[in-house]
Amino acid sequence: MEPTNEVKTDRNLTDDECWQLLGSQEVGRLATAAAGEPEIFPVNFAVRERALYINTTPGSKLVEIAVNHKVAFEIDQWGPDVAYSVVLKGTAEILETEADRAEAIATGLVSFTTTDKEEWVRITPTEVTGRRLKRQRSAG
Amino acid sequence: MEPTNEVKTDRNLTDDECWQLLGSQEVGRLATAAAGEPEIFPVNFAVRERALYINTTPGSKLVEIAVNHKVAFEIDQWGPDVAYSVVLKGTAEILETEADRAEAIATGLVSFTTTDKEEWVRITPTEVTGRRLKRQRSAG
Repeated sequence: MEPTNEVKTDRNLTDDECWQLLGSQEVGRLATAAAGEPEIFPVNFAVRERALYINTTPGSKLVEIAVNHKVAFEIDQWGPDVAYSVVLKGTAEILETEADRAEAIATGLVSFTTTDKEEWVRITPTEVTGRRLKRQRSAG
Repeated sequence: MEPTNEVKTDRNLTDDECWQLLGSQEVGRLATAAAGEPEIFPVNFAVRERALYINTTPGSKLVEIAVNHKVAFEIDQWGPDVAYSVVLKGTAEILETEADRAEAIATGLVSFTTTDKEEWVRITPTEVTGRRLKRQRSAG
């Protein structure tokens, strides 16, 4: 499906390719920067209408620092020859209204560990970028 | 190798388990928080004497924001029943001296894309934590 001359080179992903890749993955990493301290969390997530949804535990660190804060979110996929990564920047909010929570639950997200995960966080993107990387093999 | 009563529950990883897992992985994600803006980068990395080494491009964003800054670094591994994640916090520095660079090169790190990656960054940990998660299946 790709032009032959692109197979051997790195390139940026299109917006649609980024969202296709986001939709195909179950696990991403959420990075936050509260008080200048970077934090990073592996999370299960779902995509709905170009927003991300995360299900988490009330009172968790994730909830505390995600509210009203800028976040970065990353997924990647590594094959023997080609790797893909997508980085999304946006804002995270805890969903409070029944309508918002219903929308989150409608994603059908099932977390790896489901115990007591009653909070939903939505990440609304401000920027999505992706890269396709071709493995460089040493000569010979 | 694990006590039977631990197989069904989540638990923290020991320090040694964290480092074993870090040593077994090729790809991690580096999170930075320059000027309150979280950033996240997928990177190839190597472990040597309980420090992490990353090979990157001169002038890259990674270099700019990693210097003298606190960083967080994450790896994870997801199986059908059990997942592991390790989060390391520490400080990143660009290696300037020949001795430091030689130590980095001695890790044998080969990046997925090797073009023009002449800078080495060392992450010295201040805290390493890990979790082992058991997938919770719905009843029935």
